Amino acid sequence: MSSKYRPELTDAGLSPTQAVLAIDEYQNTRELHVAEERALTIYIDSYEIVTLMTLGTQPEMLALGYLKNQGLIKKLSEIKSIQVDWEVNAVAITTFENRDDWKDKLGPRIVTTGCGQGTVFGDIMEHLDGLDIQGIKIKQSRLYELLKNLNAYNDVYKNAGAVHGCALCHDTEPLIFIEDVGRHNAVDAIAGKMWLEGISGNDKIFYTTGRLTSEMVIKVAQMEIPVLLSRSGITKMGLNLARDMNITLLSRAKSKHFLIYNGAENIEFNVELPPKREVANIIK
Amino acid sequence: MSSKYRPELTDAGLSPTQAVLAIDEYQNTRELHVAEERALTIYIDSYEIVTLMTLGTQPEMLALGYLKNQGLIKKLSEIKSIQVDWEVNAVAITTFENRDDWKDKLGPRIVTTGCGQGTVFGDIMEHLDGLDIQGIKIKQSRLYELLKNLNAYNDVYKNAGAVHGCALCHDTEPLIFIEDVGRHNAVDAIAGKMWLEGISGNDKIFYTTGRLTSEMVIKVAQMEIPVLLSRSGITKMGLNLARDMNITLLSRAKSKHFLIYNGAENIEFNVELPPKREVANIIK
Repeated sequence: MSSKYRPELTDAGLSPTQAVLAIDEYQNTRELHVAEERALTIYIDSYEIVTLMTLGTQPEMLALGYLKNQGLIKKLSEIKSIQVDWEVNAVAITTFENRDDWKDKLGPRIVTTGCGQGTVFGDIMEHLDGLDIQGIKIKQSRLYELLKNLNAYNDVYKNAGAVHGCALCHDTEPLIFIEDVGRHNAVDAIAGKMWLEGISGNDKIFYTTGRLTSEMVIKVAQMEIPVLLSRSGITKMGLNLARDMNITLLSRAKSKHFLIYNGAENIEFNVELPPKREVANIIK
Repeated sequence: MSSKYRPELTDAGLSPTQAVLAIDEYQNTRELHVAEERALTIYIDSYEIVTLMTLGTQPEMLALGYLKNQGLIKKLSEIKSIQVDWEVNAVAITTFENRDDWKDKLGPRIVTTGCGQGTVFGDIMEHLDGLDIQGIKIKQSRLYELLKNLNAYNDVYKNAGAVHGCALCHDTEPLIFIEDVGRHNAVDAIAGKMWLEGISGNDKIFYTTGRLTSEMVIKVAQMEIPVLLSRSGITKMGLNLARDMNITLLSRAKSKHFLIYNGAENIEFNVELPPKREVANIIK
């Protein structure tokens, strides 16, 4: 099949927020928006894989990216259809092969990921060993332009909080921006979209509002994206993985600020910044 | 056995941060601290349950609280010992019964929780149905005192970021404060400590720096804590659960601010605040 093959898809994205009333410290009643959080159970050829808690705006892409990132399906052309039904909070993926041995294939343990709980690396780490990620050069000025352009997104966060945003970017432009209640879901949904549209990762920049834990770095490596940019912090294991995988890693990226934790040779400093106040822990 | 029974425990907590070098936007090399993130695989009577990614400061409490919150062990007196061995990134829990049928008991699916991925409610939701959480009254002035007292904690976050803090509080005092790379781990470790020390939840306040998603509310409900306070936002499902479980829920709690989403009748407004600037979405 050609690379333009698309499985049959529903388009069942739901509204991300709902208005509720809250009372503030002045005892005033205020109408505010809160983020939705919906259970979505993924079935593949009728076999139940996992239940994800999601914002619900991109259920098809989330399911697709989850299967891709967990290594459960290797080729898009194996997938016949992806059908979301919110009546039963389920997404049914049907393969052309229509296997009935998913249980045997998956083994007794479901591969899940999460915010520090339920992680199983196993096969995924083996897959990463085979990757060869080539660094790309980035100008500081273009990075600032990208951060500025990213400010136009993050709609749900601005409106309701309680979500993380992730973006696939090229040079100074966000190409895909997805928010979800879990940052892993947002990454998976972007992976699904990239897979469906045949977008490669090797000349892209991945941006997230969330922290760079080991699983975030692993997922970005799986997409073969050479640059990872976060508005938040990193963990030591996330950093170690970025070093192992040759991923340029910047954290605390906001406005004019950033901290390069790996791949500093790929950043070209071409911006004259105003003098800064003394910082105690500068080494040179 | 008496309530003072304690299983044999290792005391294998590790240092939460490590110094690394990073380069800032001025091209200065800086020595900064990053949070550790360690894999910890939980075995119960030699049966592998799950691998958690944790800061590693409270591994015994984390394992204990995980088993408690997942409903895998009902009584502390069933547990003979909890042994952490970082050489193999494992914690071994041995029961007096030393069961060899954990696989049958657990079924083919491992119950895991996470940041919106890998959630399985099942039995846990049934357990919640039996709970009867009684609201407690809180004065606004005491709440502000508590928020002020909480500022003295959050050591790892202040030093390295990339972690969430959770606290069990009584009136204006934090009793237990635990940080971890995943907010679910921090909650579980507090649950473990409460279980071990025989601390009840019904007159306590639970504080978290993290978001209140459904799983956070469920875990607090399992600990029978009537008040849940977050510095961050909430999701609609988290709010729905708090309403169902009669949990007083406040978000955006920081300095003098808060938003009451459920249980406003339990908050006594006794502080004269300075006049505030007009807010567009005030209803009354």
